[in-house]
Amino acid sequence: MAPHGEGSEEAMVVQDENRKPISSILIVIAMQTEAMPIVNKLQLKEDLDSVFPKGVPWVRYHGVYKDLHINLVWPGKDSTLGVDSVGTVSASLVTYAAIQALQPDLIINAGTAGSFKVKGASITDVFLASDVAFHDRRIPIPVFDLYGVGSRQSFSTPNLLKELNLKAGKLSTGDSLDISPQEEASIVANDATVKDMEGAAVAYVADLLKVPAIFIKAVTDIVDGDKPTAEEFLQNLAAVTAALDQAVTQAVDFINGKCLSEL
Amino acid sequence: MAPHGEGSEEAMVVQDENRKPISSILIVIAMQTEAMPIVNKLQLKEDLDSVFPKGVPWVRYHGVYKDLHINLVWPGKDSTLGVDSVGTVSASLVTYAAIQALQPDLIINAGTAGSFKVKGASITDVFLASDVAFHDRRIPIPVFDLYGVGSRQSFSTPNLLKELNLKAGKLSTGDSLDISPQEEASIVANDATVKDMEGAAVAYVADLLKVPAIFIKAVTDIVDGDKPTAEEFLQNLAAVTAALDQAVTQAVDFINGKCLSEL
Repeated sequence: MAPHGEGSEEAMVVQDENRKPISSILIVIAMQTEAMPIVNKLQLKEDLDSVFPKGVPWVRYHGVYKDLHINLVWPGKDSTLGVDSVGTVSASLVTYAAIQALQPDLIINAGTAGSFKVKGASITDVFLASDVAFHDRRIPIPVFDLYGVGSRQSFSTPNLLKELNLKAGKLSTGDSLDISPQEEASIVANDATVKDMEGAAVAYVADLLKVPAIFIKAVTDIVDGDKPTAEEFLQNLAAVTAALDQAVTQAVDFINGKCLSEL
Repeated sequence: MAPHGEGSEEAMVVQDENRKPISSILIVIAMQTEAMPIVNKLQLKEDLDSVFPKGVPWVRYHGVYKDLHINLVWPGKDSTLGVDSVGTVSASLVTYAAIQALQPDLIINAGTAGSFKVKGASITDVFLASDVAFHDRRIPIPVFDLYGVGSRQSFSTPNLLKELNLKAGKLSTGDSLDISPQEEASIVANDATVKDMEGAAVAYVADLLKVPAIFIKAVTDIVDGDKPTAEEFLQNLAAVTAALDQAVTQAVDFINGKCLSEL
């Protein structure tokens, strides 16, 4: 059926966009340890003439891989403290600046995450998030409460999910590595299987600037398990980044030559 | 004593900058109700040809007031839900984009806040924050813990503090309107008198882009009082914005004609 009536031109433009092969991917990653295996696998080079403002620690790696222009950004090391600039504020800023500078067709937010044994998760499982939301923005005023939770569907990629044999689950984001009882209740309310510190912020910015985004998260720690989160996270970080690296590379291979509607 | 040795030229440039009268102020405000009295008092006009990307809800008001170029930005209404885009992610994005577009000499983050009766605060008190930090970014890994708290001194303005007869206190920021016991402990650890939902994020971005920032916060609710925060906040919002409006206008009057080092 041909589109007709109000908005049909816009609908056709969107349809055309969805049918054009994807040419540019932006990979957003929070930590250097998570980023470097992917940088090496895709043979990306560091941008020496930064597209970002002077003084910000944000780092961009880029290159051409098969038919794709790939940009990978991470928020860099905190200039005072020297640790990775994790969390929602840094992730949202670098995502915003990278979209503005690079105009990607698709965003992949990749990283490590916590998960829950009650949801059947194990260390090194890799999830593709169907939905994202926040679990630490409680604003108990009507409608503001929904804004705080900020629940969004990620861009739907059923073929990618099937081809890569990833697990599907909802992702919940908060700025703490651990969770308080209030945050745990919000995670349950979000029906989340995976918990990270950036996803919902990347989703917010991607939505604001109308760029489709997907979320690939590899499990470093079992939140409802026996081990303290920080210890388990650090113990598994290097090993799990190998699983993450593999999933992201497979995803890029799958995306190559396809248009958005084929994902 | 004349500067000499390594870095002296840079020191002189900074000194010169500090001695030039301030010509451009960026006021960052989270809510429309907080912004409009100031917009009206300073006779600012809405920017119809936005300096921000297409599609974002961010709003800029601007005008010349005495010898100052004033820009006031607020993150606008959430395009799906229609409520003010409060919290750290929106505040950091609009602050970043506004600094990039407008290159202000000074940022004033103004807004309503919660405070504590144990700290001697009352409704309608107006605070100038000496320090800002986060209370909902717990990352129990050495050094990452400090990054999470993100404690920063605000730009020091002893003369402004004295002239306007404001209260001084530390500000703690989190993305929830209420506070959990864990967040309360962090607020105590931050030695905070005032609690808001944006300040530390604005401070982070200002610091990243090397723009001095001050924080003027008017008390809408007593966190350790008898009334539920949301109810007390909504009840007092309109009245307290009058106190906020007055303090911000007085601050702008005081800043007019002065250089940074005279504040």
